[in-house]
Amino acid sequence: MKQIEGGVTAVGGVRASGIAAGLKKNRKKDMALIALEEPAVAAGAFTVNRVKAAPVLLCQQYLRGHIAQAVIINSGNANACTGEQGLLNAQRMSTYTAEQLGISSHLVLVASTGVIGQQLPMEIIEPGIEAATQALDLKGGHDAAEAIMTTDLVSKESAVEIEVAKCPVRIGGMAKGSGMIHPNMATMLAFITTDVSIHHTLLQSALRASVERSFNSITVDGDMSTNDTVLLFTTGDAQNPTITEPNADYCAFREGLDHVTTELAKAIARDGEGATKLVRVYVKGARNTSDADKAARAIAGSSLVKTAIFGMDANWGRIIAALGYSGAEFEPYQIDIWLDELQLVRNGMDAGFSESTARELFERDELSVIVDLKAGDGEQTIWTCDFSYDYVKINASYRS
Amino acid sequence: MKQIEGGVTAVGGVRASGIAAGLKKNRKKDMALIALEEPAVAAGAFTVNRVKAAPVLLCQQYLRGHIAQAVIINSGNANACTGEQGLLNAQRMSTYTAEQLGISSHLVLVASTGVIGQQLPMEIIEPGIEAATQALDLKGGHDAAEAIMTTDLVSKESAVEIEVAKCPVRIGGMAKGSGMIHPNMATMLAFITTDVSIHHTLLQSALRASVERSFNSITVDGDMSTNDTVLLFTTGDAQNPTITEPNADYCAFREGLDHVTTELAKAIARDGEGATKLVRVYVKGARNTSDADKAARAIAGSSLVKTAIFGMDANWGRIIAALGYSGAEFEPYQIDIWLDELQLVRNGMDAGFSESTARELFERDELSVIVDLKAGDGEQTIWTCDFSYDYVKINASYRS
Repeated sequence: MKQIEGGVTAVGGVRASGIAAGLKKNRKKDMALIALEEPAVAAGAFTVNRVKAAPVLLCQQYLRGHIAQAVIINSGNANACTGEQGLLNAQRMSTYTAEQLGISSHLVLVASTGVIGQQLPMEIIEPGIEAATQALDLKGGHDAAEAIMTTDLVSKESAVEIEVAKCPVRIGGMAKGSGMIHPNMATMLAFITTDVSIHHTLLQSALRASVERSFNSITVDGDMSTNDTVLLFTTGDAQNPTITEPNADYCAFREGLDHVTTELAKAIARDGEGATKLVRVYVKGARNTSDADKAARAIAGSSLVKTAIFGMDANWGRIIAALGYSGAEFEPYQIDIWLDELQLVRNGMDAGFSESTARELFERDELSVIVDLKAGDGEQTIWTCDFSYDYVKINASYRS
Repeated sequence: MKQIEGGVTAVGGVRASGIAAGLKKNRKKDMALIALEEPAVAAGAFTVNRVKAAPVLLCQQYLRGHIAQAVIINSGNANACTGEQGLLNAQRMSTYTAEQLGISSHLVLVASTGVIGQQLPMEIIEPGIEAATQALDLKGGHDAAEAIMTTDLVSKESAVEIEVAKCPVRIGGMAKGSGMIHPNMATMLAFITTDVSIHHTLLQSALRASVERSFNSITVDGDMSTNDTVLLFTTGDAQNPTITEPNADYCAFREGLDHVTTELAKAIARDGEGATKLVRVYVKGARNTSDADKAARAIAGSSLVKTAIFGMDANWGRIIAALGYSGAEFEPYQIDIWLDELQLVRNGMDAGFSESTARELFERDELSVIVDLKAGDGEQTIWTCDFSYDYVKINASYRS
């Protein structure tokens, strides 16, 4: 597997753009467009929030045909809780983009992120679509990645070249998200392109499995948004024999896809609102995978654990308390806990570690909390971040 | 129902004390003792965390007899995750207090709150027990309430006089808790005394039901502790005919008990770490009570909703997003939402409210978020607080 440049435009024939339409007050880029040369096999994964934004409903409808050619994206306004008018506006975004591209409107998907409950200003959106179409470029991936940011501090891209049946295959992606991040893809958008030749049912199942291991394995604040969307398009231009069953070729593709989605997901967790550290929570020795998942999510989601990490305090009591309410089954006096290589807890009690060593570990940008429940073979990894003053600052004033 | 003074010592014959033994570095009070004249009918409710502190295990064992006469409490050290030695220390606290009081050791319950994972310094605890016994006083309720505080900013007491079968009955209580507060009584301690004459099974069922409506209906940060304990003692000295079935007398007692527990619970939510406001989340029109409960807890537990309230931002989109992932069933475009008397959302969309009016409402110390799901008759109230910089500050440096 080879890391390559280019994000979503790392894949041949994919054009993208990111422009400033005027949706954001600060003149930053706020609309992105990704367009393929031909209609492509496409797959999607969406928020499970009962309240779904208009563009999510539109994508779910359009993707029933498993074919798409472009996606138009705006930041600054989520087009959620906007009723009939919101649906009409999402459709208009699709139709107007299709007109600009000279293709059928059901081939253009739509995604939005930003404030909930306000109608899209279509008088800004439409000229934005024109400008985004004009700006389409085979090297436009980075501009597009910038245009989908909201409270993100950095743009998020990843691309790889892999081999499937000895044929080179490329996978490129971009994502946004830093608040409202939680299992099941809370306010995050991700767009992935590839050229692998694959049947649409396998593309969809690959996406679903890969999302589970990446975007659904991060948590920033426990909130889940109305707009989460992951879209995957393939041009099908690679020379590999079309993947029609879950064989070795499928696994090779999955490996590349997992790499891209995991890199993007970790970038989201690292860029968690106000975060100073990326934190990996790894639970092993659980009774089963489900228990490992509950335990890891309870730790990764605990405000008390996350503030302690921000405060560089090896407060393992909070980790044990989170395990205790996680619902996982274990014997309290069998648990071992490590901070990276430093053992904090042995058999449920203080392991007698050096506080100064712990403090040195906390200087790292990336930390692991490792738990062994000694109750079985289940394991799970969840990515999160620490919880700082700036999380509150960012979220106390988001709308204003 | 008449509000009275005195906290746990509002009930005749109950003595209490609070003294500084030296467990806390700042010379603040850190040990409390409550003692009745005679062995009393007693009931308890405890954390459901799988990891239970030694004093919790001890109380659960001793209360099998439904009789107790005193409780010794320390703050500053939770005696949790302390293994065999921790259990021995909890037992020693009970035995030593019993010796000082000249009563049988199985009549003395124990509660602890503070840092997890360190052994109790018994060389400080034992002289503390002696001092607390010496200080016992029929007006010692307030000292005791102060001695159980940790990160609490204010002590929490409530007492009422009610009538049961035309006989005066008193109920007095005190509580501590401001962080790690969540449904199922996270790091909170509460001690309630009364003189009602009642059978032990009804005392226990009254406590269980009352805890559900009070301490289990608040949330500060979603974490649940290893030490949560609510103890209820009755001297049985009131002249009411002994309550032996759930009749009108039982209901009268429940009403008084609910008042005391709810006042204490609200005081805990109001004193949430870093909180500037008490927030009541009231969901009505849910399909059933369970849905109302899920919906209210999702809103009350959302970091994004709580930071928006701190930021005085009527960001109702976050309330809708929380409803959407709560698991409650409803039609998104039927929801109404109010902030106190100001309607923010009508039928799932912006109600066109005045932002300046909303801003004025946010000046209040106490606010209600009211949601009508229009899906049935279920309703639920959950108390919480806003989420400020100071929550992070307090919790980033708690151990040091």
